[in-house]
Amino acid sequence: MRLKLPIICFILEIILIILFGAIVQYNDETDARQWHSNNHSDYENDFYYRYPSFQDVHVMIFIGFGFLMTFLQRYGFSSVGFNFLIAAFALQWATLMQGFFHGLHGGKIHIGVESMINADFCTGSVLISFGAVLGKTSPVQLLVMAMFEVTLFAVNEFILLTLLGTKDAGGSMTIHTFGAYFGLMVTRILYRPNLHKSQDKNSSVYHSDLFAMIGTIYLWMFWPSFNSAITAHGDDQHRTALNTYYSLAACTLATYGMSALTAHDGKLDMVHIQNAALAGGVAAGTAGEMMLTPCGSMIVGFLAGIISVLGYKYLSPILENKLKIQDTCGVHNLHGMPGVLGAIVGAVTAAVATTDVYGKGMDDVFPKVASGEFDATYQGGVQAISLGVTLGIALLGGLIVGFILKLPIFGAPPDTICFEDSIYWEVPGEEAAHDSPMTVVSPEEAKQLNPEAV
Amino acid sequence: MRLKLPIICFILEIILIILFGAIVQYNDETDARQWHSNNHSDYENDFYYRYPSFQDVHVMIFIGFGFLMTFLQRYGFSSVGFNFLIAAFALQWATLMQGFFHGLHGGKIHIGVESMINADFCTGSVLISFGAVLGKTSPVQLLVMAMFEVTLFAVNEFILLTLLGTKDAGGSMTIHTFGAYFGLMVTRILYRPNLHKSQDKNSSVYHSDLFAMIGTIYLWMFWPSFNSAITAHGDDQHRTALNTYYSLAACTLATYGMSALTAHDGKLDMVHIQNAALAGGVAAGTAGEMMLTPCGSMIVGFLAGIISVLGYKYLSPILENKLKIQDTCGVHNLHGMPGVLGAIVGAVTAAVATTDVYGKGMDDVFPKVASGEFDATYQGGVQAISLGVTLGIALLGGLIVGFILKLPIFGAPPDTICFEDSIYWEVPGEEAAHDSPMTVVSPEEAKQLNPEAV
Amino acid sequence: MRLKLPIICFILEIILIILFGAIVQYNDETDARQWHSNNHSDYENDFYYRYPSFQDVHVMIFIGFGFLMTFLQRYGFSSVGFNFLIAAFALQWATLMQGFFHGLHGGKIHIGVESMINADFCTGSVLISFGAVLGKTSPVQLLVMAMFEVTLFAVNEFILLTLLGTKDAGGSMTIHTFGAYFGLMVTRILYRPNLHKSQDKNSSVYHSDLFAMIGTIYLWMFWPSFNSAITAHGDDQHRTALNTYYSLAACTLATYGMSALTAHDGKLDMVHIQNAALAGGVAAGTAGEMMLTPCGSMIVGFLAGIISVLGYKYLSPILENKLKIQDTCGVHNLHGMPGVLGAIVGAVTAAVATTDVYGKGMDDVFPKVASGEFDATYQGGVQAISLGVTLGIALLGGLIVGFILKLPIFGAPPDTICFEDSIYWEVPGEEAAHDSPMTVVSPEEAKQLNPEAV
Repeated sequence: MRLKLPIICFILEIILIILFGAIVQYNDETDARQWHSNNHSDYENDFYYRYPSFQDVHVMIFIGFGFLMTFLQRYGFSSVGFNFLIAAFALQWATLMQGFFHGLHGGKIHIGVESMINADFCTGSVLISFGAVLGKTSPVQLLVMAMFEVTLFAVNEFILLTLLGTKDAGGSMTIHTFGAYFGLMVTRILYRPNLHKSQDKNSSVYHSDLFAMIGTIYLWMFWPSFNSAITAHGDDQHRTALNTYYSLAACTLATYGMSALTAHDGKLDMVHIQNAALAGGVAAGTAGEMMLTPCGSMIVGFLAGIISVLGYKYLSPILENKLKIQDTCGVHNLHGMPGVLGAIVGAVTAAVATTDVYGKGMDDVFPKVASGEFDATYQGGVQAISLGVTLGIALLGGLIVGFILKLPIFGAPPDTICFEDSIYWEVPGEEAAHDSPMTVVSPEEAKQLNPEAV
Repeated sequence: MRLKLPIICFILEIILIILFGAIVQYNDETDARQWHSNNHSDYENDFYYRYPSFQDVHVMIFIGFGFLMTFLQRYGFSSVGFNFLIAAFALQWATLMQGFFHGLHGGKIHIGVESMINADFCTGSVLISFGAVLGKTSPVQLLVMAMFEVTLFAVNEFILLTLLGTKDAGGSMTIHTFGAYFGLMVTRILYRPNLHKSQDKNSSVYHSDLFAMIGTIYLWMFWPSFNSAITAHGDDQHRTALNTYYSLAACTLATYGMSALTAHDGKLDMVHIQNAALAGGVAAGTAGEMMLTPCGSMIVGFLAGIISVLGYKYLSPILENKLKIQDTCGVHNLHGMPGVLGAIVGAVTAAVATTDVYGKGMDDVFPKVASGEFDATYQGGVQAISLGVTLGIALLGGLIVGFILKLPIFGAPPDTICFEDSIYWEVPGEEAAHDSPMTVVSPEEAKQLNPEAV
Repeated sequence: MRLKLPIICFILEIILIILFGAIVQYNDETDARQWHSNNHSDYENDFYYRYPSFQDVHVMIFIGFGFLMTFLQRYGFSSVGFNFLIAAFALQWATLMQGFFHGLHGGKIHIGVESMINADFCTGSVLISFGAVLGKTSPVQLLVMAMFEVTLFAVNEFILLTLLGTKDAGGSMTIHTFGAYFGLMVTRILYRPNLHKSQDKNSSVYHSDLFAMIGTIYLWMFWPSFNSAITAHGDDQHRTALNTYYSLAACTLATYGMSALTAHDGKLDMVHIQNAALAGGVAAGTAGEMMLTPCGSMIVGFLAGIISVLGYKYLSPILENKLKIQDTCGVHNLHGMPGVLGAIVGAVTAAVATTDVYGKGMDDVFPKVASGEFDATYQGGVQAISLGVTLGIALLGGLIVGFILKLPIFGAPPDTICFEDSIYWEVPGEEAAHDSPMTVVSPEEAKQLNPEAV
């Protein structure tokens, strides 16, 4: 790794800098001349209406995803550290790819807070795939995966949002379904028959589960900001945040109930709490901005929690043993199935939209229905088709990228030292050098072991 | 727990979903039709003026309270995990209870960001009570307690804010005093004479104290947002945040000084730092929105810090030994006494309010004084009476709920395994499986090692 | 410490309360009478346009700096705890010092959210210096250092921003360069030839590095808010946040590349990741608000990351061995050199500013250039001079304050117990009292225990 990682980091960053220099500009709200050439109050700058949401999303990407994956006992440095590295790369690359597809202005990409949010969203999709291959890939492989996945994400997003006119503000399809099935296919291609040799490290310890809860809680708290970050201003952002808030709350009760019901002798399983409790946010990603009603949001969250726990308990073992899909974080249960559920809920909710319910607000939520280009049922159909398109691109893309990642040059870790930081990091010891009030062996234990000894 | 927890989770959530379906609607700012039927700019939506405060409060509820309680060496999963569960339930139930008492619109409860903040506030009160019984109650008991406490909270809040016309934006009375004394009475009723059998687990370890500091610091940082979250717009929110900021800063210096002064051989005690440093936020809960002046805020915070440390040092042992109140987190010192102090400060500050000081702003802070319905002295009296009402409802409610929680059906943990995660959670080991400077040897392995071997 | 710490805490806080009572008032946006005497909408209150940024900065100060320093294996309580104490003091003292220099209103200091941000900024500078002396100073010494440093910070800030007309919104000079070189000079004066006696504690353990990553990630995420917190409204805040976002992303790739390139057998070094990845934020502190362009920001961040890692790898050992500067956190690499780089970038960017690029926005970014008082080149010169002034005041101030801190009365810890919490804190054990699946026995201890026993 001495040379491979430095080379790819420097080459990628230098390419990014050159491309940014060539085609990226401030947009009208970040450019000093442009902003002041128009006649508006500084308070109308979109910064004030999107930036707080952006920062919440930013926390989910770097703290949420990063710490959620620290549950592994010996992979904390890599979980947070590689999450940090690939996210920092992906958000720059996503700015270019999305900017290119979202439309150029005289050959230039214009950026501001909204493009920053979209870049973070695209990054989130890459981090979901990272969860599927966690512990089994080198940082070089991850950067290569990110490069391809960001590109395919932008293509899929362009087809859905621009060509088809799909609505997916919170990304049940574009972010979660895409990221999950892309990652699952990649990990399938990278299948390791002898992974059991590292099995002892593929589990948590007490403190690592607490670190992971930091990630879980931050994802859970800020998900309302995530789903509402790029919806239309006014009631749309407000409603989306509210729907997501109740969907997550309902999902949490379902998760605890199902975990105690299914786990060994009725004890709660941290894996379920850390992951399934978030499924309600994923499932509200498409319909969250629609008139789903608080009750509808809660039903969606409740179902998502149940499906997710059942997935961890019964489906994951099948995927691993039968389909040879080694899904380290169980992204299929947290992002895959809940994402599909969210897409279906979105299609149904769109199909039943009426002017009676949306009034003039139809223009914000379903512009093509408001303009008469679509009727609601057609919009629902478009939503359903979009799910198929997303699954297709994700699976096909994952297939190709998976084989690319198999190239030996990218230096995958051997089966015997997966889920292990020390292969990539200078790792210090576990124990502090000090006389603590409690020696590692307590006086009592010592006495029992040998009175004379003490 | 295999059946009890799932049953109560599912029953409660299904009841919530049915009730939400029957009587909860979007308000004018979250409903697409309503919002667009009025003639205003999207930028006037209250989302932009309350949501950032809401998210700060949300972090205090789920990260702040959750991690503050992880100081126990073997109760981290339960501290964060049960905090998560009961908060997710309480915020849904609070939406109904508060919505009902805050006034229905044609038989319907209307919700938006302000109701979300109020729901989180009510949840905070439940989590304060949780701190008093921490480690000694099952999740089923906690959910039952939350159900009753939320209801009583809404009743007390209704009497104070609606019937009496009390001002208590930051909830020194409605949240902190109520939550603390309710919880203290509950733990009194649940008194365990043999709790000493779990005493070895009722303490912290080095890392658990660091996790707890995450909770402390987040509560401390976001308290200005907490106290200002639902005050009137403009100068009121601005002033409340500023007063709380200085109150907390002064409280912190008082806490460090008192901790070193009272603790064993002048060393600082983490219990004081983790808790007493927050008393300044509690004590500024009522008067924070008033013209308390920065200096006044600092005096309040300074006194709160001193009282709180003294409480931990001298009062808590008395409460436990004489009054049989086993207050795990010392909520009496962090929320009880500082809450009462805050109520008194609020009453005095209200009593001396003059138009000379408040100008037209009197309308926002003391509408009944501005309208001439009250004079300032009378407002002060109302504030004082409200403290009495709050204490009465909290203590009586805690008494009744305490006895309900004693019912064997709710499955309290035995005295010998309190403060212990393993009774409710699948708990992994403490040590990672790897070659650290210290190798890990299980008793079994140790047995296998013959003397020559070592 | 039994008496010294309490005495200084109480004396300082009482002085603060008296001074606040004498000369601090609410400003027009926090005073009920003033605000309502003017004719404007509550939504125009600056609270809504600065407070979210303030809270992000607040998190950086208390969580970011506090946890970044928890990397030491046995100094976590002190890192978070003393950071908490001196920050709580410094922000109050800074309110007075900055208020005094920023101009009095009829002999009074007027405060609001902007002064709160400035107070947090000044506090950040003190915490940078804290990083240089971390583990080698008593809390009493730290409070004394904070008192003097805040005062000198305010003087330097006054000379730059008010007298010279320098632009430094993100504080590359006023905060980072000043704090770093002040702290480096202090630690030079406090040089301990026998510090090696505590060397075994001057390192991290696995969990302490994960706690430190919490600090790193929060600083990284919120740096865009930090640099944009007090820039002009509208495009300026928006552009500053965007520039910082890309500068940090580029810096992160440079950091990972350089760390793998320079560290032992190509493994990543947590010290680099925790610190150097942040240099991009420091380096964008001055030019961030200018029309640096996204590409320019990325180049700056890229260079900052390279310089910072090289500093940790090659310069720090020289500073320690040759110049006797024991820089615990390597603030010279994270804040010192990147701060100087940021100042130079700012000077150059200012010197090439043209109306063609800035349009009417010139008025916000370079008011003196817009008004014709300066030409751009002159502004660039002023920026360069400001760097020299800052370095001079920081080094001279650090020299004097360093000697003051040497006074035995402030009770510095002995060389043998530096980097150790137990001298200031009641420290619990490392291990939980429970039957964990594995007890921990080191080979050495195992040897002592006789075989029959096990």
